[in-house]
Amino acid sequence: MYLNFSKLEGLVPAVVQDHVTGRVLMVGFMNDEAFRYTVESGSVTFWSRSRSKLWIKGETSGHRLLVREIATDCDQDCVLVKVEAIGPGVCHEGYASCFFRRLEGEEWKKTEPRTFDPKAVYQPRP
Amino acid sequence: MYLNFSKLEGLVPAVVQDHVTGRVLMVGFMNDEAFRYTVESGSVTFWSRSRSKLWIKGETSGHRLLVREIATDCDQDCVLVKVEAIGPGVCHEGYASCFFRRLEGEEWKKTEPRTFDPKAVYQPRP
Repeated sequence: MYLNFSKLEGLVPAVVQDHVTGRVLMVGFMNDEAFRYTVESGSVTFWSRSRSKLWIKGETSGHRLLVREIATDCDQDCVLVKVEAIGPGVCHEGYASCFFRRLEGEEWKKTEPRTFDPKAVYQPRP
Repeated sequence: MYLNFSKLEGLVPAVVQDHVTGRVLMVGFMNDEAFRYTVESGSVTFWSRSRSKLWIKGETSGHRLLVREIATDCDQDCVLVKVEAIGPGVCHEGYASCFFRRLEGEEWKKTEPRTFDPKAVYQPRP
């Protein structure tokens, strides 16, 4: 299960996609440890660049991302993880997907309502 | 149309998704110039890290990616571009999507046939 971590200082981008709807939910980064932990645990785990530690997605909120399929690209320097998303949303701002802003003209516009109150489920996140 | 390019040395990951099927086709990187060129031209344009120049996707092969929608994430450090993909595939190895390998056990397995002969459409790519 080789990946090329050398192009991005030990990381690969990890695109998380809902396995049923196909919606892209978020993009994070994995180092080798996070990737292996994701495969072994079946729960999407990133490398937090801001905290410099493993970030088991949903560890605080309960909104885990259960792995259904993992693909990699031609250069093996990126992964696409199809998941079953537990809970009302993946975004720490309270949205179903982190991609809740769309470009309209030259402005980013919010295109959907929150699905949960982030204050109710999150500890402060760095 | 602010994006935060500071976390990745001037780049943001750009996830390209088919606007009809929802399939993730490829992931590239954009700097500010590539992002603006993408928005202005309507044709997905990356920053080639290997060649250190703008990479208008499909310029050589004709397999352009026409922008249908651009979204960004909560941190505004990543973009999701929904596209109409021109031609039989986006991957320089001849596949519809760059994500043609799936993890089975501990092995990456090719899961689909080529859709075109890359030698017939590509110049050598760095």
